[in-house]
This record gives sequence, structure tokens and C-alpha cells, in this order.
Amino acid sequence: MERASSQDAPTIAELGETAVLARILPRLRPGAAALLGAGDDAAVVAAADGRFVVTTDLLVHGPDFRLAWSTPFELGWKAAATNLTDVAAMGARPTALVVAIAAPPSMGVDVLEGIADGLREGLAALAPGAGVVGGDLSASPVLTIAVTAFGDLEGRPPVLRSGARVGDLVAHAGARGDAARGLALLFAEGTDDSGEPDPVRAHDVRARHPQLVRAQLAPEPPVAAGVAAALAGATAMLDVSDGLARDARRIAEASGVGLDFDAAALGTDVRVALAGAEDHGLLATFPPGSPVPWPFDVVGAVVDAPGEILVDGRPAGADGWDPYSGWDGRSG
Amino acid sequence: MERASSQDAPTIAELGETAVLARILPRLRPGAAALLGAGDDAAVVAAADGRFVVTTDLLVHGPDFRLAWSTPFELGWKAAATNLTDVAAMGARPTALVVAIAAPPSMGVDVLEGIADGLREGLAALAPGAGVVGGDLSASPVLTIAVTAFGDLEGRPPVLRSGARVGDLVAHAGARGDAARGLALLFAEGTDDSGEPDPVRAHDVRARHPQLVRAQLAPEPPVAAGVAAALAGATAMLDVSDGLARDARRIAEASGVGLDFDAAALGTDVRVALAGAEDHGLLATFPPGSPVPWPFDVVGAVVDAPGEILVDGRPAGADGWDPYSGWDGRSG
Repeated sequence: MERASSQDAPTIAELGETAVLARILPRLRPGAAALLGAGDDAAVVAAADGRFVVTTDLLVHGPDFRLAWSTPFELGWKAAATNLTDVAAMGARPTALVVAIAAPPSMGVDVLEGIADGLREGLAALAPGAGVVGGDLSASPVLTIAVTAFGDLEGRPPVLRSGARVGDLVAHAGARGDAARGLALLFAEGTDDSGEPDPVRAHDVRARHPQLVRAQLAPEPPVAAGVAAALAGATAMLDVSDGLARDARRIAEASGVGLDFDAAALGTDVRVALAGAEDHGLLATFPPGSPVPWPFDVVGAVVDAPGEILVDGRPAGADGWDPYSGWDGRSG
Repeated sequence: MERASSQDAPTIAELGETAVLARILPRLRPGAAALLGAGDDAAVVAAADGRFVVTTDLLVHGPDFRLAWSTPFELGWKAAATNLTDVAAMGARPTALVVAIAAPPSMGVDVLEGIADGLREGLAALAPGAGVVGGDLSASPVLTIAVTAFGDLEGRPPVLRSGARVGDLVAHAGARGDAARGLALLFAEGTDDSGEPDPVRAHDVRARHPQLVRAQLAPEPPVAAGVAAALAGATAMLDVSDGLARDARRIAEASGVGLDFDAAALGTDVRVALAGAEDHGLLATFPPGSPVPWPFDVVGAVVDAPGEILVDGRPAGADGWDPYSGWDGRSG
């Protein structure tokens, strides 16, 4: 479990909570929306239009990540990226995060430092101006990262899943299947002979397929495209975390419409593009004829087939990720 | 680990994520501040004065609670109570929570239902009008509850730890040592011969000491007293989670003053009142001569002894709770 730690780093237990926080907090920036940052019982964050968008997510060692594959920096980056995308999917500008981490007392403090660095750099790259305004540190046998992210709708209504109308364009921004391809490579070639995640073999996979491994371990979702979509009049939008087909069905069911994908627009491997989870792209619908903002691609149309997902007019199979059925019990 | 579950309840894995959420969400209320509740990528919450207070906290099976002692209802209640108190300690009115839970797939869904019921009833009792606006469900070998709580300062400045001035009154609202007494009883008499938490013996402790056990497992902190203190002009305030002496020192250090407690005001067991953790009372300072609002008791005075904690003018020993040094590795 402590493979990710250097032999030289003191453990969390050796340092104690106060000294650990003294190492972590200087690595984080509170961001422009922080009226009061970490250090009191709670933080105070600006919510200029009298509302805030909020989403929360837990990343757990084993089902959600493996320390044999991910660096601590990548864990922090991904924890930021996935939550920022949920904020973006409402059409909001991300403003701040709070982060609670539970870690084994025997873990090296450098793991927490790496997570903090990844959070900071992920925020800087994907949501400039947003920062970490507060957090919590607990003990657990299982490294667990809880992120709650906030956003500002800047006076606009939120873009819901329920607003798609027949005739709308279906558009997508972000990777289509790369994160799943990266994960499949890691499972196929980044494990030892008993199937356990293996850091040395994963390093080889990373060297041969840097883009696909990075898409899985440190994705760069199109966070800024969320506000662009809202400004362009998007009628519905969501974060594609469970695969394009499965998440498209959520828009279809919430809106009482069907989404018909154009196979040619989905790339060369339509199956992976539709089924692959964890790309954290944005799927949105736009009024017919409206200009679709960069980096969205038009990939289909909204049709009168309530709750249905089609590809070139034919029913598509659903596929996705259930956190309970999809985890085999290994930690790695 | 699944002692808290009935034999008849289906497991989380048997039901799958969608069916589990369908059982949990109806047990929760979004509350008056929820402009958009659970069901989309993120929630939207009112922040009437253009700011929001936010605090986050992780509760982990083992270091933070034992399923041999706590019912799921009590876990949910305590998760709400401890976070609401952090919001109250800023002088804010709690408005909403988001809750992320990671649970073993083999756990009975009734554990999650009980946690949801405890969250709902804890909110109803301690912060009427506040609700659960969103959440997340993950898999983990260790039951983990992450709560992020929000509050409304209603136009007032936050009450910080740094505002105490020499001559101010020191006042406290809430229990003084009861939670620690309850925990000590559970460790002394609620464990089996090898020291493991034992549900049958804990039941006996509960029957003999219902108030002290409840103070530990389902505390009723004085949440509403936070706004009352702010309105009464409190100069500093915090949530007493780590013991009165240790938390008082945080005000002393942040404000550059000393806090001198009056032993007679602390009750019959001054040592437990000063050292006992997890009461989640509110410690505040008020300008001299100002009326101290109910249910605060005046328990001392702010003196010119930067960073010092005194009792009847004599230096007090510090004592408290470090999550890494205080956990022996057992789960229970």
C-alpha cells in the first residue's frame, strides 16, 4: 500500500496531524473565491449571484485507483478533474474545492504532499482561479479522498439533464474511450502473473502508451467548455463518467427524448467510444442550427424515442460502470 | 463489520447502485436552501448574502466509530451534528449538507438506510430547514462517511478564532466531558476480554448510562447557539471537538491572548471537562459586561498571557485527540 512513498519520507503517524498539515497547506492555494480559507472551523466562499453549485465524490484505494499505477500527483489531479467536470456540466465556472483525506498512519507523508501538488496543478490547468479552501485529515486503513467542488452560475440558469428537445443537436467535448483504453492496457499488461497491479509493468505500459495511460490516470477534461456550452444555449448537459451510451440514456430519460448518435462522428472504435467510462467529457444538446462552441463536436441528434439511445437510427446496447459490480476486491 | 445489519436485508452488491439510491434518497429531505437537489451532476444551493460557509469531515469505521457500538442511525446523526457545529461556530445558520458514503459491497443496505434516517433526524432536530442536497456512493472495504456542510452568515461577518481581546468573557455552551465519559465507559465495559468492541456488552453500558453513551454516539450540540452568539457580539468562537483545553488554546494562539478558566464553573470533574473530546460544544468570547446568550455559561475570562490556558490563574495541562496517535488499529 505504501509503494507510492519514498523510503526516506516520515510517516503520517511519526509527524502527527499538526506537522502533516504544516507540510500540506502551503502546497495549496485558496483561490480567488476564498473569503476565508483553511484554519478556522469552516471556510467562507464567495457566491456572487446568491447561489452556488456543489458536487461531491469519493475516491477509494482499490475500487477507484491503485497506488501501483497512479502516482499521488495523479490521484490529486484526477480528484480535482472529475469534480470540476461535474461543476462544469451544470454550466458553471468552478470556484473552489474542499478536500478530506483519510490515510493509513503508516503511509509516508510524501503521498499526501503529492496529492496536494496534483490538486493544485489540476486546478491551475483546468480551472484557473479556483482553489482549495478547506479540508480534513483522518486515519483509515484505506486511502480515501473526498472532494467537494463548488461553482458559480454567474446569473445563468443551471443546464440540467432534462432540457433536451426533439430536433436538438447532440454534441460532445473531450476524449471518447481513451480513459477506458488506458485502463484496459493497465489491466492487461500492468499486472503481475496473479493479476495484481504491478508498478514496474505499469511503468512499461506508461512508456509505450503515454497518452492513453494519462487519459485514465490524470485526465484533462474540457472544464471550460461547460460555461461555453451554457453561453451558447445548451438545452441539456452532463459529465460523461460512466460511458457515452449510459450517460446519454440519463439525458434521454430525464428529457423524455431519444439520442441518436452518428457512428461516423464517434471515431474508429464506436463500441469503445460508447461504452468507455471515465473520460469525463461533456455531452450536451443544443438548439437546431445553433453554432456549437469549441471544443464540442456534433455527434448526433435528439429524436422522438423517449429514453432510447440509437446509433445511426438503430438501438444501441447500454454499457457502463457500477461501483459495486465493477470492483473485484483487489486494492493494488 | 456487518453486525449493524439485519440478516434479512439485501446487500449493497445484490441491489446495485441504482436500487440502493432509490432506497436512500426518499429518506432525505433537500431543505429550504436547495434550489436544485440530488439527481443531476451537481446541486444548486441558495447563498442569500453572496457567500457561504463550508466545512468538511470524514468519519471512518475504526478510528472514528465502531459498528459494535453505534447504530447506523447514530452514525448519520453524529455525522450531521459534528459538521453542523463547525458551521455554527462561524456564527452561521446551517443550510445544507452533501454526503458521500463508501461502503463494503457485502454490507446490508439497511445500514445505509439507517445512516440516511440519522442524517435526516439529526438535521431536523439540530438545524430545522437544512437538508441533504446531494451525495455520492462508492465501494470501500471500510465504511466511510464524508459530510460537507454549508451555512448562511445572513450578512454578518464570520466569528473567527482570532478576535478574542483581553478582558472578554469566556463562555461555553454544551456538554463538558459527557462524550468522553461515554467513550471511556464503552472502552472499559463495552469490550470483550480481548479488548474488542462488543455489541452485547455495549448494550449493557447503554442501559446503565444512557445519557453518557448518547453524548458520545449521538450528541446534541448547541447548533442554534452559534447564531445567537454572533448576534450577541461574540468576538471569537470555535467548536470544541478536541477538548476544552486544547481548543481553547487555538483561540488563545489565534488571538494572541490567554484564556483563564474558573474551575468552579466547569463542574465537579475539572480534568474531564477540560480534556474530554467530542462534546462539540461552542466556546466563545464576548465583550466584558455584555449579556451572554442562552445556553452559554460564563466559564472564565480572557487575560494577557499570549497562547496560555490557565485554570484559576494557574497554567493548565494541555490534552486532546490526535487522529493518528489516538487510534489503536482496531475497527470493532
